[in-house]
Amino acid sequence: MNRHIAIYPGSFDPFTNGHLDIVQRGLEIFEKVIVAVACNSEKNSLFSVKERMKLISELVTDNPRVQVDAFDGLLVDYVVKKEARVILRGLRAVTDFEFEFQLAQMNHAVCEQVETLFMMTSPSCAYLSSSMIKEVSKLKGDVSQFVPPCVHQALQKKFARD
Amino acid sequence: MNRHIAIYPGSFDPFTNGHLDIVQRGLEIFEKVIVAVACNSEKNSLFSVKERMKLISELVTDNPRVQVDAFDGLLVDYVVKKEARVILRGLRAVTDFEFEFQLAQMNHAVCEQVETLFMMTSPSCAYLSSSMIKEVSKLKGDVSQFVPPCVHQALQKKFARD
Amino acid sequence: MNRHIAIYPGSFDPFTNGHLDIVQRGLEIFEKVIVAVACNSEKNSLFSVKERMKLISELVTDNPRVQVDAFDGLLVDYVVKKEARVILRGLRAVTDFEFEFQLAQMNHAVCEQVETLFMMTSPSCAYLSSSMIKEVSKLKGDVSQFVPPCVHQALQKKFARD
Amino acid sequence: MNRHIAIYPGSFDPFTNGHLDIVQRGLEIFEKVIVAVACNSEKNSLFSVKERMKLISELVTDNPRVQVDAFDGLLVDYVVKKEARVILRGLRAVTDFEFEFQLAQMNHAVCEQVETLFMMTSPSCAYLSSSMIKEVSKLKGDVSQFVPPCVHQALQKKFARD
Amino acid sequence: MNRHIAIYPGSFDPFTNGHLDIVQRGLEIFEKVIVAVACNSEKNSLFSVKERMKLISELVTDNPRVQVDAFDGLLVDYVVKKEARVILRGLRAVTDFEFEFQLAQMNHAVCEQVETLFMMTSPSCAYLSSSMIKEVSKLKGDVSQFVPPCVHQALQKKFARD
Amino acid sequence: MNRHIAIYPGSFDPFTNGHLDIVQRGLEIFEKVIVAVACNSEKNSLFSVKERMKLISELVTDNPRVQVDAFDGLLVDYVVKKEARVILRGLRAVTDFEFEFQLAQMNHAVCEQVETLFMMTSPSCAYLSSSMIKEVSKLKGDVSQFVPPCVHQALQKKFARD
Repeated sequence: MNRHIAIYPGSFDPFTNGHLDIVQRGLEIFEKVIVAVACNSEKNSLFSVKERMKLISELVTDNPRVQVDAFDGLLVDYVVKKEARVILRGLRAVTDFEFEFQLAQMNHAVCEQVETLFMMTSPSCAYLSSSMIKEVSKLKGDVSQFVPPCVHQALQKKFARD
Repeated sequence: MNRHIAIYPGSFDPFTNGHLDIVQRGLEIFEKVIVAVACNSEKNSLFSVKERMKLISELVTDNPRVQVDAFDGLLVDYVVKKEARVILRGLRAVTDFEFEFQLAQMNHAVCEQVETLFMMTSPSCAYLSSSMIKEVSKLKGDVSQFVPPCVHQALQKKFARD
Repeated sequence: MNRHIAIYPGSFDPFTNGHLDIVQRGLEIFEKVIVAVACNSEKNSLFSVKERMKLISELVTDNPRVQVDAFDGLLVDYVVKKEARVILRGLRAVTDFEFEFQLAQMNHAVCEQVETLFMMTSPSCAYLSSSMIKEVSKLKGDVSQFVPPCVHQALQKKFARD
Repeated sequence: MNRHIAIYPGSFDPFTNGHLDIVQRGLEIFEKVIVAVACNSEKNSLFSVKERMKLISELVTDNPRVQVDAFDGLLVDYVVKKEARVILRGLRAVTDFEFEFQLAQMNHAVCEQVETLFMMTSPSCAYLSSSMIKEVSKLKGDVSQFVPPCVHQALQKKFARD
Repeated sequence: MNRHIAIYPGSFDPFTNGHLDIVQRGLEIFEKVIVAVACNSEKNSLFSVKERMKLISELVTDNPRVQVDAFDGLLVDYVVKKEARVILRGLRAVTDFEFEFQLAQMNHAVCEQVETLFMMTSPSCAYLSSSMIKEVSKLKGDVSQFVPPCVHQALQKKFARD
Repeated sequence: MNRHIAIYPGSFDPFTNGHLDIVQRGLEIFEKVIVAVACNSEKNSLFSVKERMKLISELVTDNPRVQVDAFDGLLVDYVVKKEARVILRGLRAVTDFEFEFQLAQMNHAVCEQVETLFMMTSPSCAYLSSSMIKEVSKLKGDVSQFVPPCVHQALQKKFARD
């Protein structure tokens, strides 16, 4: 197993500046970061897994050390399949902490060699959440400062259709 | 913009003694308090926006410094439309805190001149939540000590129909 | 009312090692522990109330001081009907704490003689939650270390049908 | 060991209405409640252990089911010496929760048959802390609504000497 | 009593960019903000109350709507003496929240007409604390981005003497 | 700078099984882990920095990938001097989280290329704290299950002298 690969899983519906911040800082530590879109979160999602992967790819396309992927089934199984051992996660707040704690403990229990490492989200991104961004965007609020430009355009397109 | 007006937004489904406590204490600080019922929270709600507005109006009718209104769309847009700059919110507990923190930061980012001010809910109301009151009421529990009399009657009527 | 009876309510969908830990430790303190499955939590549940009761019964069948039951309606009404006064609950984490705090205060307000007593979940069970176990199990992950054997088998059966 | 005895330990410097609330509600559940003043907390304390015991005794003197005592050394050793198995503690807030969680786990690890049971402090007492009451009292603030009358008098006497 | 005056109390040892942010945003809401340095926090402080007042005055000197003052004794007594009714406080995080909650409830109980209003600290200041800044400064770390220039110079002077 | 080195700083007074757990799991991710004892935490400490370093060395002596060191001054300066960029920290609970969050943000602000990565402490160690272990040990409680054998002996020696 390769400890220089970090899997960064999430639903990324949509990918925010906070997610991008974690990817960029993760690349300073790990040789490769795989952004892994969770497929089981598709129901009730705004963007399809394909759309989400495309948006993320646009953002990281220049860096050969980032890979965008999707996974189905158990996260730990995916991590093992990728021959990685590190799951990378951002922590914003206390509510995050508790859920992430449970998840990390359970993943470690299911597959002992998989470790979850956490980074604190940058202060300027600490209040961002994909769901709030969707809510604000749906109500025609300007979210351009919270998401990368391509995501902003995609959100505008989505809600223009309504 | 008028800094003596406070907008008190919420779904108020239904309005509890805890909400009333915030309105009353808010009136000690601000010249006008506008209780603003969020329309987008109508789905899955027990009372319609109209019913909720009527119940709140009954409770504050005597005070010309309180206004009951409803709003659609982004809260900050509504605040600006009302020429106000203060959003008033009650804080009960830590889980509240985190969500409210995110919301306040995002609203401030979207519209810089809008500020959210928080009051700690009175100890006797700190454990009240509209959803728990609905749950207890639905199961024929007595909620008369948690809500104003008119809300109590409205709840009884709603669940008698079942 | 009998203060030596503790009602241990929950949805137990499914019953985990964490729940079993609370029952066993509760029996060291109380003369009788009634595991009370909440019927209103049936919608969206994986196991029916009947199935859940059967699984719990298998686990505690040897101990005449444990009783497995189901209840409908308000928990405090059920507690009074059973002539008990103690509700027993496990606390895992801070998010638990706040919800449980609200619930305990409200139950005490609705029926003053009913008290909720909390036990801290054992460290080895502190990260277990029924919903995560269902999620992992559904994705064919091995949850045998988190639930009693009979629950493990029942989970495998459920998801084999998919 | 007797499971009908609850040890209620603390520094009680001074004993507040919140502590009294826990003792009274504890008596509804347990046959005997031993209020156990921790001696090791004497340094930097306002009242001596003797003074604290005397004040508590005045408050519970009528009830033969309450005993006031002091303990030195490990709490679990004291609990075992008293042939009890239950430690009773009040929980006010999240910060309490974490410290109490650590303490309860450690006590259980050191002595497996000792269990800590928690009660949520009543809403009207949830914001009381002995240290804040001392602070307010020292600055000549009126704390008569937060502590029993005899404690109020003792505080006034203490700070009159300054 | 004048509801257009907000008292902003603290030890401000030293005054940080986070404190300045609250004062500036407070001025958007209130007609007058009184920055009130707590005298009882002098022991173990780095700067004397006089030094702290001087530093704050330098920062707000241009604005006639800000006043810098010091207070001794109970905060609520000071608020009443100033004929104000609003205490303004910044909230950074959950630990803040609980302490502030206790303080606000107790102040409201001691003096009912005094209300505490909270603002969420701006994201870029949410991790700042006076004690950490002192610690970093003492170890010759650069804190110029966390405090106003005059405070930075004062810190350098203080620790140069060591 | 070398991203394969992780600095694991702390006061380690004393080193517990929880600390050892983080070191061991850290070695699965990083090529080298430097356990760095903070010198400024010496006052009020039970063990001198030298004693602490000796105890930790005994535990990790077999592994050439672990180094035990001490540092004075700012942590980030030490990290840079070691040509590392990763600070490794364990997270046990919510109170940890907030303090660590502040620290990590401040360290990142002071020196942008330094990142703090967090691991969740294993459930069996989540309630361990050096200060509680000292407290229990001082009161002659058995802490052998919470610390490595050499630390246990050192604690017994320390408190036998009393």
